[in-house]
Amino acid sequence: MMRPKVAMIGGGSWATAVIKMLSDNLTEKDIYWWLRDTEVIEHLKKYKHNPKYLSSVEIRIPESHISDQLPAILEPVDYVILNVPAAFLKESLRGVTPEMLAGKKIVSAIKGIVPDENQIIGEFMQEKYGIPKEDLIVISGPCHAEEVALEKLSYLTISSVTLEYAVEFSKLLNTRYIKTNVSDDIYGTEYAAVLKNIYAVASGICHGLGYGDNFQAVLISNAVREMKDFVDAVHPIDRDIKESAYLGDLLVTAYSQFSRNRTFGNMIGKGYTVKSAQLEMNMIAEGYYATACMHVINKKYKVDMPISRAVYAILYEKNSPQIEMRLLTEKLI
Amino acid sequence: MMRPKVAMIGGGSWATAVIKMLSDNLTEKDIYWWLRDTEVIEHLKKYKHNPKYLSSVEIRIPESHISDQLPAILEPVDYVILNVPAAFLKESLRGVTPEMLAGKKIVSAIKGIVPDENQIIGEFMQEKYGIPKEDLIVISGPCHAEEVALEKLSYLTISSVTLEYAVEFSKLLNTRYIKTNVSDDIYGTEYAAVLKNIYAVASGICHGLGYGDNFQAVLISNAVREMKDFVDAVHPIDRDIKESAYLGDLLVTAYSQFSRNRTFGNMIGKGYTVKSAQLEMNMIAEGYYATACMHVINKKYKVDMPISRAVYAILYEKNSPQIEMRLLTEKLI
Repeated sequence: MMRPKVAMIGGGSWATAVIKMLSDNLTEKDIYWWLRDTEVIEHLKKYKHNPKYLSSVEIRIPESHISDQLPAILEPVDYVILNVPAAFLKESLRGVTPEMLAGKKIVSAIKGIVPDENQIIGEFMQEKYGIPKEDLIVISGPCHAEEVALEKLSYLTISSVTLEYAVEFSKLLNTRYIKTNVSDDIYGTEYAAVLKNIYAVASGICHGLGYGDNFQAVLISNAVREMKDFVDAVHPIDRDIKESAYLGDLLVTAYSQFSRNRTFGNMIGKGYTVKSAQLEMNMIAEGYYATACMHVINKKYKVDMPISRAVYAILYEKNSPQIEMRLLTEKLI
Repeated sequence: MMRPKVAMIGGGSWATAVIKMLSDNLTEKDIYWWLRDTEVIEHLKKYKHNPKYLSSVEIRIPESHISDQLPAILEPVDYVILNVPAAFLKESLRGVTPEMLAGKKIVSAIKGIVPDENQIIGEFMQEKYGIPKEDLIVISGPCHAEEVALEKLSYLTISSVTLEYAVEFSKLLNTRYIKTNVSDDIYGTEYAAVLKNIYAVASGICHGLGYGDNFQAVLISNAVREMKDFVDAVHPIDRDIKESAYLGDLLVTAYSQFSRNRTFGNMIGKGYTVKSAQLEMNMIAEGYYATACMHVINKKYKVDMPISRAVYAILYEKNSPQIEMRLLTEKLI
């Protein structure tokens, strides 16, 4: 490939972190950045920092490559990195036609499910935009954006059924502090990234209720088995759920202080209502939406998922966290 | 069985925690307790609390059942729970003959390897005391003693090749805050409990060196695979390494604030020498000894264990933690 052209769609902390990786990576490339918020765009152009997320990161993108005009951003690029909250994906892509995306590689950096559609990003882009499965790429952690800003060593898994695309794209991300490996499991890594947010909420709820480290270890051991049961049911290929993209991503989310899903769950466990927790956090906890979507999706697969079920009962059926988690403890081993 | 009689051998925090479980469990039983330290014994008899470990726990054992005379403690009992640091096991059992243990069930609550012998506790007791494999029982976590004192819900796995013995013994431990399940994998659970201490040291070293949560998740994901490779090589049976006794035990040790192995590693990562870290902590970090023993044991099995190897190089070959961990990062995925 000639000098690659990459568009980032989204302006949050993870988008800013991936922009930083792309910028620090030594392969020559052109980076384009679409953000919705024009005030943020003005700030970015003037001060070279994102005022809202990872503000310490210096942004080195030509002013003309930063815009709120999505068609103009998409037009020149080879790679389109989707990096908005899943709940806002449809709205962000309004006005984008399949033709505008034709021939481009679509990279999902979103860890969530498209509401109403109840599809992971890859499925949604295939069905609604006619993207061939072969052109889809998925970025998985374990990787908190905050640690990328601090240049802490992190590992990413880049997945594509076209393994050479995964390899090519991973070469745009490697830096001194980012190591990548590749996988062909676009469905498993996407679903794992969704599920881990639900388990992080569960972990937070239990912490908020006063359960200790001993129980957390049991919860997470059960969660990774629940994750395996589900992804094996949805997409039965030979995968090792103990790899970083699955277990590692779960660990960093469930155990880290940076996890907003865990923080959200903790507030629920301490007695906040869903609404007051969301207001207090002023952030989207993807796990909240993921819980409802997975509940619907699993009606098809009927996998036994006691942890996800308990979180659903607490968040959507307004059941008592105390009672649901007490019941859950009887199902874990 | 008639009213069961149980002897605890050892006076540390985990011994005190198991004494508490046995005491709170509703099955009528007689508990005997051997401790080395006569001052502690006097304190226990007078004040009903262990002055050194988990001092909040009320001890409800008849004075006549607490003694530093091991043969007298062993004589009446059905179960002998070994619960001293592995490094002190041989010394603690000095004067004990195979005859004194004949017909009793030997329960290992030790997570370590007998120095010089380079054997896990079960193997050592079989070989040196002629205990039939069928009479061995192993207690596995994930379970920090400190959380037992706080009556935080914890899960134990009780293993024995004689599954009914595991079931019987587990019925002496269950309480409101302790749930048990059983397994027949006495070798796998013992080795996992040993290895997890090495990985907790590794985790602490990395933390001390400044690696973040993203990397910890990768380290632990690799550690559980290294653990699986080793226990499958030593004792190839069908086991799920993601169960609480393996993965859960690793998680609680590597991620918890209570882990002395992680604390020890953290000090090494921050630049303390092994000796000064040990002096500062005033506690045995089992992972330190386990690292050397596993290094010897693995000469037989030759399993690729890059994490354990790196810890060995740092603790015993005095290699630089910075360099060893940098090299390790190249081997992880």
